[in-house]
Amino acid sequence: MDERRLVVLTMLVVVANTWEHIIRHCVLKSKMSRLDDGWFREENDLWDGYSLSIKVDEVLYHEKSKFQDILVFKSKTFGNVLVLDGIIQCTERDEFAYQEMIAHLPLNSHPSPENVLIIGGGDGGVVREVVKHPSVKRVVLCEIDEDVVEISKKYLPDMAIGLSHPKLELCIADGVDYLAKSHGEFDVIITDSPDPVGPAEGLFGITFYQHIMKALKPGGIMCNQGECLWLDKDLIQRVLKTCRTVFPCVSYAYTTIPTYAGGQIGFILCSNTEKNFSDPVRTWSDNEIESMDLKYYNTPIHKAAFVLPQFARKALGL
Amino acid sequence: MDERRLVVLTMLVVVANTWEHIIRHCVLKSKMSRLDDGWFREENDLWDGYSLSIKVDEVLYHEKSKFQDILVFKSKTFGNVLVLDGIIQCTERDEFAYQEMIAHLPLNSHPSPENVLIIGGGDGGVVREVVKHPSVKRVVLCEIDEDVVEISKKYLPDMAIGLSHPKLELCIADGVDYLAKSHGEFDVIITDSPDPVGPAEGLFGITFYQHIMKALKPGGIMCNQGECLWLDKDLIQRVLKTCRTVFPCVSYAYTTIPTYAGGQIGFILCSNTEKNFSDPVRTWSDNEIESMDLKYYNTPIHKAAFVLPQFARKALGL
Repeated sequence: MDERRLVVLTMLVVVANTWEHIIRHCVLKSKMSRLDDGWFREENDLWDGYSLSIKVDEVLYHEKSKFQDILVFKSKTFGNVLVLDGIIQCTERDEFAYQEMIAHLPLNSHPSPENVLIIGGGDGGVVREVVKHPSVKRVVLCEIDEDVVEISKKYLPDMAIGLSHPKLELCIADGVDYLAKSHGEFDVIITDSPDPVGPAEGLFGITFYQHIMKALKPGGIMCNQGECLWLDKDLIQRVLKTCRTVFPCVSYAYTTIPTYAGGQIGFILCSNTEKNFSDPVRTWSDNEIESMDLKYYNTPIHKAAFVLPQFARKALGL
Repeated sequence: MDERRLVVLTMLVVVANTWEHIIRHCVLKSKMSRLDDGWFREENDLWDGYSLSIKVDEVLYHEKSKFQDILVFKSKTFGNVLVLDGIIQCTERDEFAYQEMIAHLPLNSHPSPENVLIIGGGDGGVVREVVKHPSVKRVVLCEIDEDVVEISKKYLPDMAIGLSHPKLELCIADGVDYLAKSHGEFDVIITDSPDPVGPAEGLFGITFYQHIMKALKPGGIMCNQGECLWLDKDLIQRVLKTCRTVFPCVSYAYTTIPTYAGGQIGFILCSNTEKNFSDPVRTWSDNEIESMDLKYYNTPIHKAAFVLPQFARKALGL
């Protein structure tokens, strides 16, 4: 082979390899990143073969905190969206469905809740709802990740408004550690946890529920984020089984919400005394609902939230 | 420039152009097709900025019929999936939530339904549920697209089982034309329509509801697919307004279902006489529910399906 031919061949190989490298990079990027092509796509092992996408207007924040990957984007049609470790936590358009239900289901099942502990919920949305109950004197919010608090103040002001309430004690700590030191202190404990991946894994085991049982006053109530009946049935079964070994009274309710996988999310409600959670001890009139700016919760929906489809009744033994 | 240089340069340009062509083709294809990268992605103007994806195992059928684009794929985790004009119509895993509710909500609101008309529903799922009522003597199924019927028989056998029932009269025709010729004939009319795009557009106008009113017997009931409270509020408001000009009694219920956009779908129920739809005139015991192989519907969920979140109550005037 003469020298010129060798040079030409080498050049061809170089050009071809460069293009191949560019193509590989593009393909790889589109598989790894959830923010390509103008959409955020939620894809993970929890909901195998099912994925939700929200159109992105602008990425506002994307950093790794000490505990997790935090992303905030402005969406086209759902307002600002908070994503932790690739899973949507809330959008400004539909967050009320979750915050109102996780707060008012347990609080209206208690005759006079005064001391409330929230584990997680660093965005402030649950506090915003809890302090609407005049009987509440003290709310402790125990969030593991300070960055979630700061970022919510900046990008989710309608939720973070709860973080500046005078009744709030903000505590940056691990919820399990906090509970370990608490005895007979709270009327209601709400766990506003992400799914059982990343820093929230500890919030799904028996030790956690034993700590909650210990930290509740007599007649106290626990309400935990309870996953999706359609997509997480096995996990819910396991958690309910665990709860039944700790609490004498265990129940399950749900809310609809389009930006959580499956379009709904459940709540596990437990108490150290017998309760009929589906029959709230305090009810609100339409005027009260209006003056409290409630958009999802009302007394009939409190009752209906505990009525499960047949497949779920059977699976959960409820 | 000598001849060799020219040849080399030409070759380089050809190679570069070929790669560019391949890349352009890939990028273009991924933007236009909803079946790239192993996922089916539902994306359309109805739910702006919101999109659901289901992982594809194998495409079983993809053709244009006289009326619409029909796609059937085997999914990774939801069984076989039927898609019309890019919108998911049903998956084998969760179809029961829709079929059971659209059938049993109106039929259990009627003391003794004998003649039932189904408009759309060529997959056979609604018939399967309707014929579970022993009082039913005759079911007419009016489907515009024969291909949907044939394809469902092949790929959705658990739904298409309804299509071979001896009480069924299958009629391949436009639902509006069929209704125009019908007078005081039916106890229940169910419209199992897709969204108001493509061949189903006519099923959302006032003429259609006037025809239904005329085709019902006294005490008759209509139940229509009623879109998603979270994503289609304006459309639902418009349709309810139209219905109120035609029927003296109008109500709204919903079911949860993860593979419809927003995770839920509603039902518009109307009657030519006053009815309390949320209080079924016939109720079923757990044994009856079991023997009828119901997976979603039960008597408590019938009642709860009419209980709306506060934002929806206000928006729909219910």
